[in-house]
Amino acid sequence: MIPTHIEHIGIAVKDLEATKKYYEEVLGLTCYAIEEVADQHVKTAFFQLGQTKIELLESTSPEGPVARFIEKRGEGIHHIAFAVEGIQEKLDTVAGKGIQLIDNQPRKGAEGFNIAFLHPKSTFGVLTEFCEKE
Amino acid sequence: MIPTHIEHIGIAVKDLEATKKYYEEVLGLTCYAIEEVADQHVKTAFFQLGQTKIELLESTSPEGPVARFIEKRGEGIHHIAFAVEGIQEKLDTVAGKGIQLIDNQPRKGAEGFNIAFLHPKSTFGVLTEFCEKE
Repeated sequence: MIPTHIEHIGIAVKDLEATKKYYEEVLGLTCYAIEEVADQHVKTAFFQLGQTKIELLESTSPEGPVARFIEKRGEGIHHIAFAVEGIQEKLDTVAGKGIQLIDNQPRKGAEGFNIAFLHPKSTFGVLTEFCEKE
Repeated sequence: MIPTHIEHIGIAVKDLEATKKYYEEVLGLTCYAIEEVADQHVKTAFFQLGQTKIELLESTSPEGPVARFIEKRGEGIHHIAFAVEGIQEKLDTVAGKGIQLIDNQPRKGAEGFNIAFLHPKSTFGVLTEFCEKE
């Protein structure tokens, strides 16, 4: 039930192309996928670095959660995603410990993962995602 | 010159003990070290998760960088640290590409690492650390 690793770090950006260029040309990483997640109103760019991915998130709508995050806090690190096994059981367990869930049940995220978020109000300010590969 | 992995994620917290308890009792991680870094005015708690550490940061001074971060943005994810080889060369390279450095030369961080920060103004809002084990 303990997370196995950090699956990805989500970063909210205003301009996916410009930020992607920075991660590629300055940090030397390679973008291996660009994917739109209509449900979340985001366009994403993925970089693999060891066990963990960097996921850049650009909002496709001014009403989307990433646009609202940037409006409030500016560009920057948006969330941490922990790779878990048995995501529904893990959600039930943390809810039983008083953690407020954004998603009571997993839904489909980028790359076909089953994902669910915990509310940052009960995780000391860190928007926390659980994700599990099918 | 490409970072090998994400060495750690730094998280700014108000109350190290309470947050440590959450990572242990809710997420199931194990804190393996508590260390004070006088130079940075922080007390840190470390958790290893695969290749990457979670580093909780509580300020030991109201004037410290973590206290100022929390005052401005609230608790939450503070920085990402990339493990690099040849840190001075890497700093010179990114500076040559127009990136603003906070540290022109590496200094000692927690766990004896040589560390240096890039300014979030030139990294699309992400406070970015390079670190290298001696």
